Amino acid sequence: MKIGVLGAGQLGRMLALAGYPLGFQFRFLDHNPAACAGQVGELIVGEFNDYRALDRFVDGLDVVTYEFENVPVEAAQYLSSKLPVLPGAQALATAQDRAAEKSCFKELGIPTPLNHNVNDESDISKALGVTGLPAVFKTRRHGYDGKGQLVAHSEAEALQAWEKLGRVPLICEQHVPFERELSMVAARQITGECVFYPLTENWHTEGILRKSVPQTNINLDLQSRAESKIRSVMDHLGYVGVMALEFFLHKGRLLANEMAPRVHNSGHWTMDAGCVSQFENHLRAIAGLPLGSTQPLSISAMINLIGHAPEVDSILRAEPTARVHLYGKDPKPGRKLGHINITAPGLESLKRKTERLSKLVGG
Amino acid sequence: MKIGVLGAGQLGRMLALAGYPLGFQFRFLDHNPAACAGQVGELIVGEFNDYRALDRFVDGLDVVTYEFENVPVEAAQYLSSKLPVLPGAQALATAQDRAAEKSCFKELGIPTPLNHNVNDESDISKALGVTGLPAVFKTRRHGYDGKGQLVAHSEAEALQAWEKLGRVPLICEQHVPFERELSMVAARQITGECVFYPLTENWHTEGILRKSVPQTNINLDLQSRAESKIRSVMDHLGYVGVMALEFFLHKGRLLANEMAPRVHNSGHWTMDAGCVSQFENHLRAIAGLPLGSTQPLSISAMINLIGHAPEVDSILRAEPTARVHLYGKDPKPGRKLGHINITAPGLESLKRKTERLSKLVGG
Repeated sequence: MKIGVLGAGQLGRMLALAGYPLGFQFRFLDHNPAACAGQVGELIVGEFNDYRALDRFVDGLDVVTYEFENVPVEAAQYLSSKLPVLPGAQALATAQDRAAEKSCFKELGIPTPLNHNVNDESDISKALGVTGLPAVFKTRRHGYDGKGQLVAHSEAEALQAWEKLGRVPLICEQHVPFERELSMVAARQITGECVFYPLTENWHTEGILRKSVPQTNINLDLQSRAESKIRSVMDHLGYVGVMALEFFLHKGRLLANEMAPRVHNSGHWTMDAGCVSQFENHLRAIAGLPLGSTQPLSISAMINLIGHAPEVDSILRAEPTARVHLYGKDPKPGRKLGHINITAPGLESLKRKTERLSKLVGG
Repeated sequence: MKIGVLGAGQLGRMLALAGYPLGFQFRFLDHNPAACAGQVGELIVGEFNDYRALDRFVDGLDVVTYEFENVPVEAAQYLSSKLPVLPGAQALATAQDRAAEKSCFKELGIPTPLNHNVNDESDISKALGVTGLPAVFKTRRHGYDGKGQLVAHSEAEALQAWEKLGRVPLICEQHVPFERELSMVAARQITGECVFYPLTENWHTEGILRKSVPQTNINLDLQSRAESKIRSVMDHLGYVGVMALEFFLHKGRLLANEMAPRVHNSGHWTMDAGCVSQFENHLRAIAGLPLGSTQPLSISAMINLIGHAPEVDSILRAEPTARVHLYGKDPKPGRKLGHINITAPGLESLKRKTERLSKLVGG
């Protein structure tokens, strides 16, 4: 089976490496001729809205997926007329627009931070009336890794945010003083069968994920509430593949923050401490194969390499269980260059190891 | 770092897939233009004794290794004059000649089945005087997967074996009624530092490995005796990389059967149930990086797919922990086409799962 992937960044690269053992072949489409998945699979260079590039991309493929949620919905729709595009265009459309995403959560009764759309400067004061202060202003589209977001502590700052973010449609959200940030990665087959990885706790700095720890001692009630939320989103969208749903845990409630219609950075621990990884389960789902076990084989943690990566030698010397995943990208401030997965026999030693390694990688 | 691999079969393929996350690049040399590692890395088609092919192969590489022990020693020596070839030519020379291998074991005081070299028909009767009957006649060179071996129960059968095996130099070995077949996979760095995976029990049918189960409840004395044996072999050969040593367990003694100067089929479970796999540790060793943990994350078993592979769908449906590794090879009787790794929470459930899957794959 030949799988096409829209986008050729690290997520595409890791999909290919997970798929070769199952006999899959891969082709990527990306505007960047140096995109890092091109080092491990066929790369077609072209824009997502270049229909001639899309035609070359699709020739001989069996199914198309994406590793990047800002693919134009029109491109996904165009490809859908030729072959299965999974997850479907509706999931893409919902996930790439924060207002559509919030409406979807609302329709399904999934609690979120209070929020209000800001289409114009005149909406700001009404929005703050809904959310209170401080509030977070986020562009409806194209935000990632904390980009396209500003926190406002006053109406004056809110007006500045409107200017700084480029006078584009925003969503204004309540700034929730959450206790923990948690995410769930799950996979759904076309038959509706789902599997769920354990809730994972995430730590961000400057809007970029630094560290994820799957919760092995998880409160089962919390896990099952998160599962039912992500299941309802996936069912609603007729979703096929892996999805991630990010939550704030606040006063015992899980507030949905955002969804990603793809494999997710907070699921990278599954590569080395999971049974079947998120990458493999995504491929299984879109290929119509049975989903695999999401049970962790060990306590583990994932640490991102952001901006610069220390010598592999020093990481491996510091930690015998470390598995280093480099993405083949040039260093640049704020860029995700790779990640490290580690395992430990217990939570205390995991904590010690994670602190030591975080220091080493400057996280 | 660009790594050259002599041979482009499944072991080379799995080396490349293990190496991409560490930023390594790969080039293979194989006489077969359809060799399966060519699906995941650059393949140069040529014979190992074609020096022009070797020159093309070596251009721009940093280090050379092999995935196949029948590489001509002269080729390894030729390449060694240009760049590091690891493990070295001496290890290759020893491992590819059963007589040299047995001399090495003898020199190091490592017990083996009784044996005697047969260079000529006239040596047979003396050899049987040493080993007794039944005896196993093995060609000194080029045997694998039970090929080049015959058991003789009488002197007449021994003479027939000599004819059938082509009147080539043989080794005659005592046919040991062993209780168990065990192997150890270990890795050694150029500094002499070693890591050892747990002893693994192996089951063969018609000379081909069918199933391997790492011993997680291992007798620690047995484990440490095996470690000291393989360490002495690796130290003696100045070995760098992963080596496998196969033993017969007979009346409490570990008798060395043979060594493989490469990653080994009985170590494939490390891909999914180990911490750092044998493939990654081999690459780390030849790249001069610290070796990683050999501690299993789970109880596990490996089942080979021989000759024909059932539909992936049926395997995954039968077992949620199954990880299928297909090698991208055409089916052919007796050919290794892939393997399945499974994990289980306990030995009883592992046994049930293994039996069910073995039946499914016809093992």
